[in-house]
Amino acid sequence: MTDLQLNGRSIAFLGPPGTFSHSAVLKVFGPDAPLLDCATIDDVFAAVSADRARYGVVPVENSTEGAVNNTMDCLVATDLKIVAEVVVPIEHHFMKAPGTGLNQLHKVVSHKQSLAQCRKWLVANWPGLSLEEAASNAQAAKIAAEQPGVAAIAGKMAATAYGLEIVASAIQDQKDNSTRFLVLGKQERKPTGRDKTSTLIYTENRPGALFRVLEPFEQHGVSLTRIETRPSKKEVWDYVFFIDFEGHAHDEAVHQVLTSLSDRTVEVKLLGSYPMASPDPLPKS
Amino acid sequence: MTDLQLNGRSIAFLGPPGTFSHSAVLKVFGPDAPLLDCATIDDVFAAVSADRARYGVVPVENSTEGAVNNTMDCLVATDLKIVAEVVVPIEHHFMKAPGTGLNQLHKVVSHKQSLAQCRKWLVANWPGLSLEEAASNAQAAKIAAEQPGVAAIAGKMAATAYGLEIVASAIQDQKDNSTRFLVLGKQERKPTGRDKTSTLIYTENRPGALFRVLEPFEQHGVSLTRIETRPSKKEVWDYVFFIDFEGHAHDEAVHQVLTSLSDRTVEVKLLGSYPMASPDPLPKS
Repeated sequence: MTDLQLNGRSIAFLGPPGTFSHSAVLKVFGPDAPLLDCATIDDVFAAVSADRARYGVVPVENSTEGAVNNTMDCLVATDLKIVAEVVVPIEHHFMKAPGTGLNQLHKVVSHKQSLAQCRKWLVANWPGLSLEEAASNAQAAKIAAEQPGVAAIAGKMAATAYGLEIVASAIQDQKDNSTRFLVLGKQERKPTGRDKTSTLIYTENRPGALFRVLEPFEQHGVSLTRIETRPSKKEVWDYVFFIDFEGHAHDEAVHQVLTSLSDRTVEVKLLGSYPMASPDPLPKS
Repeated sequence: MTDLQLNGRSIAFLGPPGTFSHSAVLKVFGPDAPLLDCATIDDVFAAVSADRARYGVVPVENSTEGAVNNTMDCLVATDLKIVAEVVVPIEHHFMKAPGTGLNQLHKVVSHKQSLAQCRKWLVANWPGLSLEEAASNAQAAKIAAEQPGVAAIAGKMAATAYGLEIVASAIQDQKDNSTRFLVLGKQERKPTGRDKTSTLIYTENRPGALFRVLEPFEQHGVSLTRIETRPSKKEVWDYVFFIDFEGHAHDEAVHQVLTSLSDRTVEVKLLGSYPMASPDPLPKS
């Protein structure tokens, strides 16, 4: 549970109810928070920007499948701040409607990240099924409940919500599988003494540019926790870097790193400083 | 065209005929090379490993949508070498069967990267269509040719191959859009004087690890061209780095970098040294 204040306002998340995003909302805000379920990640960002919700919850990274590119690309464009992070263990189940026989299944529907996380299991166990991408796992469960012959891959919450039978449990290729979610809002968080800062970094397009970005972190003893590369979408084969590190933007060492980056004509967009999720192990630089 | 010798053997690629992978094969090997079309990227790797094909061609990176994760994950597991790279400009078209009216369309099928590359156009122009993922663009065109009411997003080659009508041309969100493909094989390439080397790097899971990986490149004046992060799939929130740089593994400076990395107990898997694609602009470090 969090100290983030709702003041009676709602939480936007990737719906419908029963998604892992919904689980993340429950973990942060508890069962009584008013919910605004959104059809896409873009809609979650838009709902918070337009004050239709106080906070938004979006997946940013899965421990098996990597970055959630939609969220990364929305972070490039948004003025929202990251105000918290939360890690949710992910178990995927293979499920079908009670009236559908196993030999009638011809298609499996799920979110693309979930299909990717269960790729090996599907090839080994259901090589004949066609794969269909749904906007969310819960949406996939809804489709499986309505369409004969269609199976879904989703979490237990979704099976319960749509009355499906679980045929096989914990089918994700990596048994120890978690997703990290971000909470988006408009205010900045105060330092707690155990914080993380997320940045988006635009470097010059020349040799050694990334090294010159990392050097100030090393000089000032600031530990990186994650680095991701995405196309800049400005010119072909031009990249931006998402760099997360330990500390709050108001910390002296972090301030020195940011000043040093600015001296090196590196453009830094501060995405937010927020309390580190615990007790999950820290990722490496 | 390339100096890679086929000796009468075939090229494995992500089929069916008409995919952008097929275009990449034509660009490297010309129209007379015997083809082995594969259903998945994993199958392309397997075909070359098992000597069912001499070379394999797989997409590795799109300039708008970023890394092709399937290929990255296959590179972790394979013993194959990267022997060449080729860049293909990508134009996506929205297409349908001649007998289908525009008002009958209820679904659009494409490869997940293509759906991602046309996300904004689809939201703006066809917000009501459900999205379905196919194994390739050409497979999507085949489905659109067979199923009434289904549109496809694919290249011109696929429209021609399956007799579809192009409704809207060049619909990708980023007009300047290219995909980089790798050619996989079993032999090593000799230095040409204008080469690139791809590596997979496992660092210690502790602060400053990435900095210590990049330092030798800076010290020996070796320019990075790309860095990508992927989950290691060994432990949660543990990462591996894909680092591409200028030069051949037999070059003196590169040799010094590799020795220095080895001294730092960084594990390096050499994925291959191969001639740089031209005349495309070089990416930055």
